[in-house]
Amino acid sequence: MNISKNQLKTITSLSQKKYRQKHSLFLVEGVKVVNEILNSSFEVDTIFATEDFESNFSTDKIITISEKDLQKVSNLKAPNKVLGLFKIPDEKPLQKTGLTIVLDAINDPGNLGTIIRLCDWFGVTQLVCSKDTVDCYNPKVVQASMGSLTRVSVKYIDLKSYLEETNLPTFIADMDGENVYKSKLPKEAILIMGNEANGVTDEIKKLVKNKISIPRFGENQEIESLNVATATAILLSEFRRSF
Amino acid sequence: MNISKNQLKTITSLSQKKYRQKHSLFLVEGVKVVNEILNSSFEVDTIFATEDFESNFSTDKIITISEKDLQKVSNLKAPNKVLGLFKIPDEKPLQKTGLTIVLDAINDPGNLGTIIRLCDWFGVTQLVCSKDTVDCYNPKVVQASMGSLTRVSVKYIDLKSYLEETNLPTFIADMDGENVYKSKLPKEAILIMGNEANGVTDEIKKLVKNKISIPRFGENQEIESLNVATATAILLSEFRRSF
Repeated sequence: MNISKNQLKTITSLSQKKYRQKHSLFLVEGVKVVNEILNSSFEVDTIFATEDFESNFSTDKIITISEKDLQKVSNLKAPNKVLGLFKIPDEKPLQKTGLTIVLDAINDPGNLGTIIRLCDWFGVTQLVCSKDTVDCYNPKVVQASMGSLTRVSVKYIDLKSYLEETNLPTFIADMDGENVYKSKLPKEAILIMGNEANGVTDEIKKLVKNKISIPRFGENQEIESLNVATATAILLSEFRRSF
Repeated sequence: MNISKNQLKTITSLSQKKYRQKHSLFLVEGVKVVNEILNSSFEVDTIFATEDFESNFSTDKIITISEKDLQKVSNLKAPNKVLGLFKIPDEKPLQKTGLTIVLDAINDPGNLGTIIRLCDWFGVTQLVCSKDTVDCYNPKVVQASMGSLTRVSVKYIDLKSYLEETNLPTFIADMDGENVYKSKLPKEAILIMGNEANGVTDEIKKLVKNKISIPRFGENQEIESLNVATATAILLSEFRRSF
């Protein structure tokens, strides 16, 4: 069976959040990531593959797509032989224990995807995002998360009420915070990372007691900050290394 | 003075390494990064700015560019009001002491830019790259390094002879290595990070005694690896945290 005009239209629309929500579908590109999501708990809607690649997938929900059509609907410069449409799963219930990462207004899809992958590596099963953080089903996030999206629960909620209600110790990554290498970090906690340009919003800062920072080394004082994804990597490593 | 056709042609050519080498020039976009490089030891060739932005720069080497021409030559989807041409500086002499990061065939410009920025943060003044690592004057690397390129010496050399001659202890980031959290790390060392897909080449592995790894946490065994830039962040943090 070949792809229809209507299907092409739906796929194209999924680069926008409102259409992902309307159809409750998201898009994945590339043989490796599509296979990884196909083998997860996520439910497949349709796989579109070029003729020579169809045999790579063990599903009957497969439809042939020409290289030309693939080029039209792909978000990548060099389209990847296969597109997967998957159903957006229901959000999981809020976990109130363990180590949780909170993101306050992260804009860059690459950063969110990298942070989802870091959570997966460090056994953090829940990522809580402010409602203005980039959507985790954005194609660039899905691409950067490399399948980790199927294993980390990403929730979009009102951060203020979440932080007002939690009993866990809370930490903000902040340039003026205590040296993280000298801080005693608990096993269960909430770690809050702020927007790429502006850090954590004042409203949230007021609700959080502990501020931690990654010290700068060497004589150079010109570099202003670390990228939020690399800072998350280092802080997650610090939270996990003593246990 | 307005931009000439010849200048437009030169700028466009600089997205390719061979033309950067021919002209010994590289391209920078955006007010913030251009200003940062303008205030560094790097030598400016020409700044091209739109009329309303010219007053932001304290140099007489400024030429007016129309929004339309800027759109034509920019590497960014949303061009940034200003383009800077800078001279590629001479490579600095090889330092034989301190902490050095070595990159073996890193392909992704975003990864190299992020690693340059990490070196800057952690006071690593020298980054040694295999000759097949992506060029540090690639526009995407310059963009991701956020001015740190002016403070970290990036050298492209033959890794085999470099490692055969060094007296410093050498470490490879390797999935089968010793748990880095349990390793005793020296203050002065060489840390080698490998290609995104294939890790460190066998030829180099043979020359290096110590292998270190970042342990994975939690029950999930499906995630295969960390991104090379986030792994570098965590390992650099480990090398620096005890001193």
